[in-house]
Amino acid sequence: MCGIVGIVGHSYVNQTIFDALTVLQHRGQDAAGIVTSDGSKFFMRKDVGLVRDSIRTRHMRKLVGNLGIGHVRYPTAGTSDAAEAQPFYVNSPYGIALAHNGNITNSESLLSTINETDMRHINTDSDSEILLNIFAHELQYLGAKKPSADEIFQAVTMLHQRVTGGYAVVALITGFGVVAFRDPHGIRPLVYGCRETPHGTEYMVASESAALDISGFTLVRDVAPGEAIFITKKAELFTQQCALNARSTPCLFEYVYLSRPDSLIDGVSVYHSRMAQGVKLAEKIKRCWPKHDIDVIIPIPETSRTAANEMARHLAIDFREGFVKNHYIGRTFIMPGQAQRQDSVRKKLNPIRAEFEGKNVLLVDDSIVRGTTSKKIVAMAREMGAKKVYFASAAPAVRYPNVYGIDMPSVDELIGHERDDAAIGQAIGADKIIFQDLADLKASVTEFNTDIEAFDTSVFDGHYVTGDIDEAYLKSIADKRSDKKKAQQLEMVYHCDSGGLQQNIE
Amino acid sequence: MCGIVGIVGHSYVNQTIFDALTVLQHRGQDAAGIVTSDGSKFFMRKDVGLVRDSIRTRHMRKLVGNLGIGHVRYPTAGTSDAAEAQPFYVNSPYGIALAHNGNITNSESLLSTINETDMRHINTDSDSEILLNIFAHELQYLGAKKPSADEIFQAVTMLHQRVTGGYAVVALITGFGVVAFRDPHGIRPLVYGCRETPHGTEYMVASESAALDISGFTLVRDVAPGEAIFITKKAELFTQQCALNARSTPCLFEYVYLSRPDSLIDGVSVYHSRMAQGVKLAEKIKRCWPKHDIDVIIPIPETSRTAANEMARHLAIDFREGFVKNHYIGRTFIMPGQAQRQDSVRKKLNPIRAEFEGKNVLLVDDSIVRGTTSKKIVAMAREMGAKKVYFASAAPAVRYPNVYGIDMPSVDELIGHERDDAAIGQAIGADKIIFQDLADLKASVTEFNTDIEAFDTSVFDGHYVTGDIDEAYLKSIADKRSDKKKAQQLEMVYHCDSGGLQQNIE
Amino acid sequence: MCGIVGIVGHSYVNQTIFDALTVLQHRGQDAAGIVTSDGSKFFMRKDVGLVRDSIRTRHMRKLVGNLGIGHVRYPTAGTSDAAEAQPFYVNSPYGIALAHNGNITNSESLLSTINETDMRHINTDSDSEILLNIFAHELQYLGAKKPSADEIFQAVTMLHQRVTGGYAVVALITGFGVVAFRDPHGIRPLVYGCRETPHGTEYMVASESAALDISGFTLVRDVAPGEAIFITKKAELFTQQCALNARSTPCLFEYVYLSRPDSLIDGVSVYHSRMAQGVKLAEKIKRCWPKHDIDVIIPIPETSRTAANEMARHLAIDFREGFVKNHYIGRTFIMPGQAQRQDSVRKKLNPIRAEFEGKNVLLVDDSIVRGTTSKKIVAMAREMGAKKVYFASAAPAVRYPNVYGIDMPSVDELIGHERDDAAIGQAIGADKIIFQDLADLKASVTEFNTDIEAFDTSVFDGHYVTGDIDEAYLKSIADKRSDKKKAQQLEMVYHCDSGGLQQNIE
Amino acid sequence: MCGIVGIVGHSYVNQTIFDALTVLQHRGQDAAGIVTSDGSKFFMRKDVGLVRDSIRTRHMRKLVGNLGIGHVRYPTAGTSDAAEAQPFYVNSPYGIALAHNGNITNSESLLSTINETDMRHINTDSDSEILLNIFAHELQYLGAKKPSADEIFQAVTMLHQRVTGGYAVVALITGFGVVAFRDPHGIRPLVYGCRETPHGTEYMVASESAALDISGFTLVRDVAPGEAIFITKKAELFTQQCALNARSTPCLFEYVYLSRPDSLIDGVSVYHSRMAQGVKLAEKIKRCWPKHDIDVIIPIPETSRTAANEMARHLAIDFREGFVKNHYIGRTFIMPGQAQRQDSVRKKLNPIRAEFEGKNVLLVDDSIVRGTTSKKIVAMAREMGAKKVYFASAAPAVRYPNVYGIDMPSVDELIGHERDDAAIGQAIGADKIIFQDLADLKASVTEFNTDIEAFDTSVFDGHYVTGDIDEAYLKSIADKRSDKKKAQQLEMVYHCDSGGLQQNIE
Repeated sequence: MCGIVGIVGHSYVNQTIFDALTVLQHRGQDAAGIVTSDGSKFFMRKDVGLVRDSIRTRHMRKLVGNLGIGHVRYPTAGTSDAAEAQPFYVNSPYGIALAHNGNITNSESLLSTINETDMRHINTDSDSEILLNIFAHELQYLGAKKPSADEIFQAVTMLHQRVTGGYAVVALITGFGVVAFRDPHGIRPLVYGCRETPHGTEYMVASESAALDISGFTLVRDVAPGEAIFITKKAELFTQQCALNARSTPCLFEYVYLSRPDSLIDGVSVYHSRMAQGVKLAEKIKRCWPKHDIDVIIPIPETSRTAANEMARHLAIDFREGFVKNHYIGRTFIMPGQAQRQDSVRKKLNPIRAEFEGKNVLLVDDSIVRGTTSKKIVAMAREMGAKKVYFASAAPAVRYPNVYGIDMPSVDELIGHERDDAAIGQAIGADKIIFQDLADLKASVTEFNTDIEAFDTSVFDGHYVTGDIDEAYLKSIADKRSDKKKAQQLEMVYHCDSGGLQQNIE
Repeated sequence: MCGIVGIVGHSYVNQTIFDALTVLQHRGQDAAGIVTSDGSKFFMRKDVGLVRDSIRTRHMRKLVGNLGIGHVRYPTAGTSDAAEAQPFYVNSPYGIALAHNGNITNSESLLSTINETDMRHINTDSDSEILLNIFAHELQYLGAKKPSADEIFQAVTMLHQRVTGGYAVVALITGFGVVAFRDPHGIRPLVYGCRETPHGTEYMVASESAALDISGFTLVRDVAPGEAIFITKKAELFTQQCALNARSTPCLFEYVYLSRPDSLIDGVSVYHSRMAQGVKLAEKIKRCWPKHDIDVIIPIPETSRTAANEMARHLAIDFREGFVKNHYIGRTFIMPGQAQRQDSVRKKLNPIRAEFEGKNVLLVDDSIVRGTTSKKIVAMAREMGAKKVYFASAAPAVRYPNVYGIDMPSVDELIGHERDDAAIGQAIGADKIIFQDLADLKASVTEFNTDIEAFDTSVFDGHYVTGDIDEAYLKSIADKRSDKKKAQQLEMVYHCDSGGLQQNIE
Repeated sequence: MCGIVGIVGHSYVNQTIFDALTVLQHRGQDAAGIVTSDGSKFFMRKDVGLVRDSIRTRHMRKLVGNLGIGHVRYPTAGTSDAAEAQPFYVNSPYGIALAHNGNITNSESLLSTINETDMRHINTDSDSEILLNIFAHELQYLGAKKPSADEIFQAVTMLHQRVTGGYAVVALITGFGVVAFRDPHGIRPLVYGCRETPHGTEYMVASESAALDISGFTLVRDVAPGEAIFITKKAELFTQQCALNARSTPCLFEYVYLSRPDSLIDGVSVYHSRMAQGVKLAEKIKRCWPKHDIDVIIPIPETSRTAANEMARHLAIDFREGFVKNHYIGRTFIMPGQAQRQDSVRKKLNPIRAEFEGKNVLLVDDSIVRGTTSKKIVAMAREMGAKKVYFASAAPAVRYPNVYGIDMPSVDELIGHERDDAAIGQAIGADKIIFQDLADLKASVTEFNTDIEAFDTSVFDGHYVTGDIDEAYLKSIADKRSDKKKAQQLEMVYHCDSGGLQQNIE
Repeated sequence: MCGIVGIVGHSYVNQTIFDALTVLQHRGQDAAGIVTSDGSKFFMRKDVGLVRDSIRTRHMRKLVGNLGIGHVRYPTAGTSDAAEAQPFYVNSPYGIALAHNGNITNSESLLSTINETDMRHINTDSDSEILLNIFAHELQYLGAKKPSADEIFQAVTMLHQRVTGGYAVVALITGFGVVAFRDPHGIRPLVYGCRETPHGTEYMVASESAALDISGFTLVRDVAPGEAIFITKKAELFTQQCALNARSTPCLFEYVYLSRPDSLIDGVSVYHSRMAQGVKLAEKIKRCWPKHDIDVIIPIPETSRTAANEMARHLAIDFREGFVKNHYIGRTFIMPGQAQRQDSVRKKLNPIRAEFEGKNVLLVDDSIVRGTTSKKIVAMAREMGAKKVYFASAAPAVRYPNVYGIDMPSVDELIGHERDDAAIGQAIGADKIIFQDLADLKASVTEFNTDIEAFDTSVFDGHYVTGDIDEAYLKSIADKRSDKKKAQQLEMVYHCDSGGLQQNIE
């Protein structure tokens, strides 16, 4: 998962991009990058680390110009090199920088074409470099000295025909403007908004609407699946549908966990959806476990608090924040004479004994993926004196890998893999487990916007909307993930056989 | 405000101190320091910044030994130099390092004695250096080649006679052990706990009990006002009351805002106290404003959420987390061609419009000090479409300066200074304001521990328990604060007339 | 002035490039960069600063592969942005990185073609980016999927036809090999050598032969003017003359000052040439000033020491190292209450009074450019008690700007501009001045290699061998220099209107 | 070896100290420190690294005040911890900071007294901390509230009675002034000078006179052995002989290698002494090897150049700088797939083949200590084609350890240990070796100042002037050195059992 932003304004945009990236920081804490342009030259700064650490005053001073794009990257251990920060750049044609959120599912076959037919060199394992070079090649192929909105939309159209997967993209064409587009299924979110200034309207595209709020931009709408928008360097807006068979299937997991509560996706408040998830869970308990003996409902911080609180109100059960999150996480140093590594979950969450002691507690989390943390938390609750420990998940069990840009463990690391719900409960040590029904989860969104017809729910039901995901593909990414992991472990010992242009970002 | 910790263990204590300091990080994000000793030598690392930034692997490797102390410092703009990190150290006698939380109220007169009678040089404006040199002088005066517990307690007794104010102290005597003591009024909190290991019992003292939890120490009890504890380097515990007229008056503000919810102070859960504060506020509304028209209760993140939620339940009003806190705060860069500085509150809190629009909202905060932030938040609520904006504070209005170690603005910057409650409401732009009654606030603690007879409530009622605070003193600190502020501003231009040994921590 | 190196080996080349760059560090202390390739990917690290500061262990570990190029950059205040480190890179076609030493004299007209005809974006003011894009464009134009040596030489041939000036270039074509070439006049130096290993012969090209020595490479010969060499990734060597009208006119200033004494240029030892310069200066004194009253000859460290010593032996005059160079140069901090800036020459050279007092001293320097330092040194000699201060320069007076890659002040800052020799002597305050005759300086080289027919001697006589330098051009670079200088000064105050991709090197 | 400086001025002294330390940088590149005082407070900055790297603008800004001291430290691998930077500080009495150059020979017995009798904690292995605490204790013992010059001299007198060894010391007494003194044998150098300003005379003490030159101070004289000087904070100078049996025996090695050529020690120019050393070597050759077949004399850079040049002139043999020193030394990175470590001497010195090929060369060095480098250089000369390789040393063979502050290898690492001159020649592979006679070396100094009666020549003849050095002591330091070395090696693997307050200088 990543966060992206693009702006064309009537004055310098570096601060606005910086602010938007901090608002999107939850979508990626691993690396950050900004590219701006003053119309004739472009200026880039990217580095690993949080936005505030990667981009300092001395960099901001050079990030001049009225148009720009930005990116925050999620640490995708196992699927891409740790240092491939975005945006990426090619100087031919025009000078184009590009950043994206998502994952391409046909990158292997694209790579060979780019190298062999297009004679373009791809130096990293990042999908962004692929998207950039395809977009650049298609534009170059059109051969315009000054690309028009039409030609840019044509290039995006060609790109959609070559690329499959989930992707939300922003690109800056030096001297011309900012382009943004979303895959034909609209899996990854992308919105745009505008702000009026004395010098005219300014436009911003971003992964989430909350990124618009902070700088006073007003949400216009979600970029449609397959649609592209082009904002010229003078801040004129053009939009066009560039996909033939666009069909909206947004990622349902954005409502569960990925997005900020203060964002609107497809017109639905994420906060409201999470409240509804809590109500639906409460109803399921009323329905399926009418004689429950729950004394207290305790959320596992922080995402689940919204659902847990509504659940408690709906069931008229006490609600207690029995786990206090340590905001300042330390590190475990490996020292001689030191006892073994302490439990890292224990360092993140401090339980308040009095809220557990002698009670039947229902722990609520937004979802269960690997289950390792859930298991430790259940054990911690017992250690604090809980009589019984029940567990509720605001989402159904995660049973299938994600191939559209959410970094999840490989399938055999998923606790839901080849386990039914009860077995998961046993595996994490809970006395009882309650999962949200998938239909209820969908309803927690559609009840606020009945126009949404379908979602990408692949992690829950194994149905992949792009239609090109087969066993072979899933096996190949699992193998790749596993190979990468080994390579990284080797590298920690010493060897370094991968890498790329990223050296200059250290 | 600061956080302190001291440990004597049977193996290296650096990781345990580090972990405790991260748990106490909310008490001071400005600087951090650790001193350890292997029995014959001591090892120090201190620097400005968060614990995780100041103390790195390369430092941890050198922080060897089975006893140690640690400190996190609050950024006290205006009252002390920004770089005087603790612990402080003197090599005569024995080699003593000391760190403290609090404030001394007779530092002026102490300073001249130390310099002139004791021939000891004080190089900074830190009270810690004063406490350290008085403690060192008293020990030196006793003249023991190897100080016993008795002699150490004698020195603490002498110190209590010379020093007035609120202070919780830890000190490490190289080659001998760790000492901790609390001022005779017990204003600043201090607890101790123990942990059993195969090699024997280990002891930890800390500002808050949550710091014990994370490393598996069990809370024994609060260090009594005036009491000292001495843990020898072999982890033998000695305790003794060292003050003649000790009387417990703990700081009430710890329950309101300063302490973590998962800490116990004087046996009272801070979380429970805050829940009770919410209930009492609800009762006040029922009592004083029975026909209220509040549609929704919205906490101002994060401390007030506990009280606000209980309040909403008690009043059966909707509770909504209408403000989303941005965890990753950015910066505002000053750039040419950039519009003026944006509102920093707006960068910290993002309001969800739907929770405000067309509603009468009651905003709940833990307390109101300067009022500037409250005012902006009230305005933000209106901007989001709130019909009416009410404001509740879980603590009474802050009207007097704190002289016992909480960094507060000078008296004329307090919004409660020379304003009654209604005037404060007007000043922040609220349609109505409700303050907790002081008696209720006290009751929110004493209902859980009826043994507590009194509190330091000086910020609310101007009653200073140490008895030595007069108009002249308050004026002198206000002047000093103001002078310092000017000096700092000058320094930002260029001049640097203060400083000290701290240079080596840059 | 810059230094370049390129290697194809049979094992990792990063250390060898690193060593070569430290040997070439005198040619540029401003920035350093290395690009390597493992055959399929390339790896880059570049940053401002000395080689040892810019390229650390963590970078070296990623600079894997058996072929690579490197660069050190001279701080060219006024003519290029301070942060445009080399090598530069384009990914289309093939992925090419390029670094160079020299200056292009028709960059203005090249720029517009590259942008408009080739649709390639140039983001900096560096000639390297121009050379790179022309080379890339010519290769792309040929359209080979796998470029052969022939096609590479064709591209260089085309490049020579489009570009004028002095340039020595190395380039790495990812997946194919290393290319090096020299302008048709051979103004800037370039040599190549080989090293036998168990796995076969390895090749290195470098600005100076001393860079070959350190890693055990044997000098083969100078790359001929206009010639290109291509070393495949398997270390096969191809060479070809790529210029139609190549004519050798190497830069004479390399022998005077730029090159290391242990380098051979066109087969001539720089050390021997400098000894000969001393002898010829001695002969000129015997000839023109037979009754001189020189008591002692004192070199101005360090380059001139070789000539001065030979001069002293030849004249049988005492030789004294009367100036001691401070190897560890400090800084002058601007502080309040501090007296004005001290003389920086005084900080670099400490005179030994006894060597000056009461004597007629002849100071010897390699050349006089601005004259400001010479003036201060003459004054220092007088201050130390010298009776008379004479001055000798191993090179003729510098009277004209350099347009082939040596960073010199603009013409009106040259002390030799519109001054005859005697006037220069007066201007620096010397009692007498002796300049080497240009014919003698040439002879100090040709006496060791009679094949050299001509030199670039433009800084002494204003004759520019490329034939395209007119008044208009000289004025344009003087203006540009002056504009840049002003821009930089502005930037120091605050504004920043230039920049480029360099942000990521901070 | 270290360098020290102390100044009392009438305006800020930080820049002057900084400049002096850069001039003294050759005496220690390992760490640097400055302490200043504004009369009431003191300000310290110390860190590992060169002066220019350790002390930056942000530190300089805080180093305010008109008096101060400074220190540069030599990397004494094996005899002291790598991070114990000077000056050291104690706050009782008065606040005293101290730095020194030299070595104490009775530190073991002093340590126990300080700890047990004086109850002062010594936390490092640095002699400076011992000297500081003895000085502090003696001053404290005198008990003056404001120490007079007399009392300070009394304390120095007491110190001389307790301490043996070679030491030159500067100390700053906060609020009072700067003290400097030299051991009763005057082994380590110390001079003082003055500078007139409109506000009165300013004084500086320093290890070498060159440090006075750079800031325009005039050398007054050497501080006499056993003498102390006290400069009050108002820049009044007091001097007094504080040793009963002072007898001057300055270190002869300062003239050979340690000092700068532009310094005067005991009135003798180091440069002149080195010239004389060359002449005397030439005379020895004429005397002992009249029929020599030397073709060329080649110095080993840089110190020996002065002697070698005079030698060549005196013998009328060609002089050639056949080795070119690489000023920018790189590093050897350990990489996988890399061949073994290359020869580091080869990286420091590049030989010019033409100067060696077919010739009988006489290499000249200032001295031979370990012999490992000499051996490599002889081999390099042969590799360059030298017919015969002779070797001359401007000093006699080093055969005994130094105990007065020069960091030398332990005795069995000295190539002169249990070898006569010819055997040393054989060991380094030279065809013939010529050592300076000790009498000639002494004469190279005394011919310029006949007042000097004796020297410390212990490294050449094993005669230790302090009279307290016996076999047991030499064995103890050899063992300690060896233990430390092992400890350091261990530490590199991981363990860290030493250390101290130095953590805060990282």
